[in-house]
Amino acid sequence: MSADPKQPPVFADIQAAHARIRDWIHRTPVHTCAHLDSLTGARVFFKCENLQRIGAFKIRGALNTIMQLTDEEAARGVVGHSSGNHAQAVARAARMRGIPAWLVMPEDAVALKVDAVRELGAEVVFCTTDIEDRRRVVNEIIERTGAASVHPFDDPRIIAGQGTAALEFHEDCPGLDILMTPVGGGGIVCGSIITTQAIAPDCRVIAAEPEITDDAWRSLRIGSPQINDNTDTICDGLKAWISELTFGIMRDYELQVERVSDDEITAAMRLFWERTNLIIEASSATVLAAALSGRMDIAGKRVGMILTGGNVDLDRLPWMS
Amino acid sequence: MSADPKQPPVFADIQAAHARIRDWIHRTPVHTCAHLDSLTGARVFFKCENLQRIGAFKIRGALNTIMQLTDEEAARGVVGHSSGNHAQAVARAARMRGIPAWLVMPEDAVALKVDAVRELGAEVVFCTTDIEDRRRVVNEIIERTGAASVHPFDDPRIIAGQGTAALEFHEDCPGLDILMTPVGGGGIVCGSIITTQAIAPDCRVIAAEPEITDDAWRSLRIGSPQINDNTDTICDGLKAWISELTFGIMRDYELQVERVSDDEITAAMRLFWERTNLIIEASSATVLAAALSGRMDIAGKRVGMILTGGNVDLDRLPWMS
Repeated sequence: MSADPKQPPVFADIQAAHARIRDWIHRTPVHTCAHLDSLTGARVFFKCENLQRIGAFKIRGALNTIMQLTDEEAARGVVGHSSGNHAQAVARAARMRGIPAWLVMPEDAVALKVDAVRELGAEVVFCTTDIEDRRRVVNEIIERTGAASVHPFDDPRIIAGQGTAALEFHEDCPGLDILMTPVGGGGIVCGSIITTQAIAPDCRVIAAEPEITDDAWRSLRIGSPQINDNTDTICDGLKAWISELTFGIMRDYELQVERVSDDEITAAMRLFWERTNLIIEASSATVLAAALSGRMDIAGKRVGMILTGGNVDLDRLPWMS
Repeated sequence: MSADPKQPPVFADIQAAHARIRDWIHRTPVHTCAHLDSLTGARVFFKCENLQRIGAFKIRGALNTIMQLTDEEAARGVVGHSSGNHAQAVARAARMRGIPAWLVMPEDAVALKVDAVRELGAEVVFCTTDIEDRRRVVNEIIERTGAASVHPFDDPRIIAGQGTAALEFHEDCPGLDILMTPVGGGGIVCGSIITTQAIAPDCRVIAAEPEITDDAWRSLRIGSPQINDNTDTICDGLKAWISELTFGIMRDYELQVERVSDDEITAAMRLFWERTNLIIEASSATVLAAALSGRMDIAGKRVGMILTGGNVDLDRLPWMS
């Protein structure tokens, strides 16, 4: 752990994170699919974080953060804000540590996800969809309870935790030429960059994001973190925008970001379900969509993709709307 | 292999089948789910044949049969009839052996499944939904080409092939008290019975089937193979009725058969998708539906379930109709 909470983690932090969390998580399998190889022209390997506890990689960062709290800090509990996978991750990690958790969720959050958080023993506190209101509600909980805040991505402990997925991936699947992840707030891609630079320096990390929320792509062109004015993408998990911390890591790495349309994402998601019998959420399908777009130079290469999650509203599939 | 094609296979046939096909198939993983354990009150293990080649266990029997043809027989090709997974299995196994395949499919077969068979290089020949017409078309192909017929279940080579799934399951997951499979024509359940009697005699095989096509249950009560007058269940894969050969194995074993409603199957299928992020077809959900019904005595037991397949029409999910 870096001393200054806004310094990027180093690879030793990721190794320490893995030692800290590995007994609490699944070492998720790597799947392949001959048909998708033939469509992309590459040899593709899928790291299945959709089969991770809570159905997403987010448990890694949440556990790494919550397991590092002192007993005194932990006793006061934790607070997180999220409409999705990070909320479940914080709730589950808090339950593993045996401490209280408050999750601030927007009042329009999917009932299923609210129920899942409550089922994990956490208390749900609603806010409006306005970011200022969310901050106000989070701060009110912190003032009242002394709970520690667990941010979805803007924290070196979170980034170090997310970097453990790439650590396992390179160990289980050596010789990747390219490692692809989605980019939302930047936790998984930044963790993957730090891990890959350390243990697979010949492998290039490439990110994918929806065209509609292309803040990472714009930020890297403009040279400073940009926000998303429109977040109306099917990728629930990729609506956040990057922070100074995650932007800095991406900029220093000169990260390549591929943008894909919601139609491309929907087609890739459906194709993946059909061909592998594995459920991935739309956010995870961005990387496959990019590989299928014909716009990337991946012919003949060994391409690893981190499938970040599989939490889907089964009553509202994007190809049915 | 038994000399008489209508004698049941013995365990040595299943061992020989596994040696014959193991390099051509996936050794599918065994998954667990704490939430489903808590709902069933048992410790449940899922053998994921939905992640098998062609997305179903059917490749096992088809390969075991087709790999045993003499070169002379093989050169004339194979013919099979099926609207679903067996068609893909025969097409794929024939391509692995490098021989021609004809698949007789009903004219109302799902376009996606017809395309999948053609994509595997097989020739599709349509028949009406009438069984006599299907027989006529199959026989016409055999007369014209000399192709060998590969039946979906009424063949000891097929049953021996299907029995290899239980062989791997007992090896990878020892100490099961109960092993559950769906029953349609009876291939997977009969193969599982023979394997389990040989290597896990303390384990009891139990079958599940839709109430609507409960021919196995009725046959065992009445004492002779019965047919299904109504096949209007969501379980595409369980519309066939058992043969003299498969009936005999079930009767001698005094097989317990659990019947579940289509509503129970739909609920179990959706729950499984939601909780595991694995896609199973309705037929596979029968066993989980039976375990969730409260009608089985499984509390505290180690229950193995063979998830037979994951080939689903993603535009027509049963909980959306």
